[in-house]
Amino acid sequence: MINNILSAAIRASNTGNMQAYSIIVTKDPEIRRKLWEAHFKQDMVLQAPVHLTFCADFNRFSQWCLCRNADPGYDNFLSFLTGAIDAVIASQNAALAAEEQGLGICYLGTVTWMADKFIEVLELPELVVPVAAISLGYKDENPGLADRLPMNGVIHREKYMNYSRDIIDEIYHDKEILPETLELLKENKKETLAQVFTDNRYTRRDNRAFSVKFLQILKEQGFMNNGDQ
Amino acid sequence: MINNILSAAIRASNTGNMQAYSIIVTKDPEIRRKLWEAHFKQDMVLQAPVHLTFCADFNRFSQWCLCRNADPGYDNFLSFLTGAIDAVIASQNAALAAEEQGLGICYLGTVTWMADKFIEVLELPELVVPVAAISLGYKDENPGLADRLPMNGVIHREKYMNYSRDIIDEIYHDKEILPETLELLKENKKETLAQVFTDNRYTRRDNRAFSVKFLQILKEQGFMNNGDQ
Repeated sequence: MINNILSAAIRASNTGNMQAYSIIVTKDPEIRRKLWEAHFKQDMVLQAPVHLTFCADFNRFSQWCLCRNADPGYDNFLSFLTGAIDAVIASQNAALAAEEQGLGICYLGTVTWMADKFIEVLELPELVVPVAAISLGYKDENPGLADRLPMNGVIHREKYMNYSRDIIDEIYHDKEILPETLELLKENKKETLAQVFTDNRYTRRDNRAFSVKFLQILKEQGFMNNGDQ
Repeated sequence: MINNILSAAIRASNTGNMQAYSIIVTKDPEIRRKLWEAHFKQDMVLQAPVHLTFCADFNRFSQWCLCRNADPGYDNFLSFLTGAIDAVIASQNAALAAEEQGLGICYLGTVTWMADKFIEVLELPELVVPVAAISLGYKDENPGLADRLPMNGVIHREKYMNYSRDIIDEIYHDKEILPETLELLKENKKETLAQVFTDNRYTRRDNRAFSVKFLQILKEQGFMNNGDQ
């Protein structure tokens, strides 16, 4: 089952067929416990038997170049971005292949926040940085589909059409009157759902701290030699 | 058909259900001609009737916050990275939904190289940056599957295992003896396939120039207020 999922992942579209990503499959409970700690102790990392970490990886490609009398120039931000895009495309192939086989999946956004910990635990060398993580396992509940913005909230025709106040009101209306939204406002003692995000879940302070940390990690992993310093 | 593809795209997993991305569907031939120019005049952009551009987008979410008495803090690098990951996951949902309906797709990596042009042509406001692009249409050829590295070239078990010279030789062997590889070496007058990449296709010089440009674009689009300057 895992092999089917991984086979689907590595068929993914990628940049120039360089396949500038790696996938780390972690089943070992001790290592998963360390990953769980780094993922802010989110339960599913311990509960689900398989953890996949998708990394931007120009290490392998650069090693190949060095073995083939070629001079690799992939220690820069564009190469990181290329590898990150390749890794995320592969991750979604894995996610859909897993769901097709009846498994449940959960992406863990904490992978970018705590990238330094995953580098340590998974022993990622230079030019390898984690960008997506998925927990995989049999579901023991069926929560139904999460709400999404309506089509015209996300899709633009021909060019980008900026949002008027009226459109914002319209596209967020259904989300704002969900029973779980009203519950959240009560729990968090907030006036609006947006405040739950800005004040509690994704604050400017945290976002800035994680930004500085991630850019520092890119430098340490060798991805910021852009020739401009 | 396009609506099925877009419906699949907007169902995609995303960070905190913020859906920090937008999809721009361009059919207009005049606008597609401008996109084609920016995509290094790659034929498929003109030939395929539909062009999808996937953007990291914290503009909509921030507008919503401002309308709801909440203070958005998404003008930083972490927020860009989050939106980019959300956008790429959605792009792969779109790609697979298109293929399932018998269409052909092609990702265009030029979208990050020339991001400034797409910002101009598609009129992307602050906090919106393109990260993936797909051309969609009926296929008029069936090129078969592209080669990929074997499973052990991309997958690591438990932790990252770095590549020895022997492993590099093994995992690149099949690619290196393909008839199209030998053809490429002759055409490009190179000793090794790796040199075709480092000297012609993805050079250090270009990668550095695109790195500096993309980081500048992140700044101009308002994604580099990390609080550290």
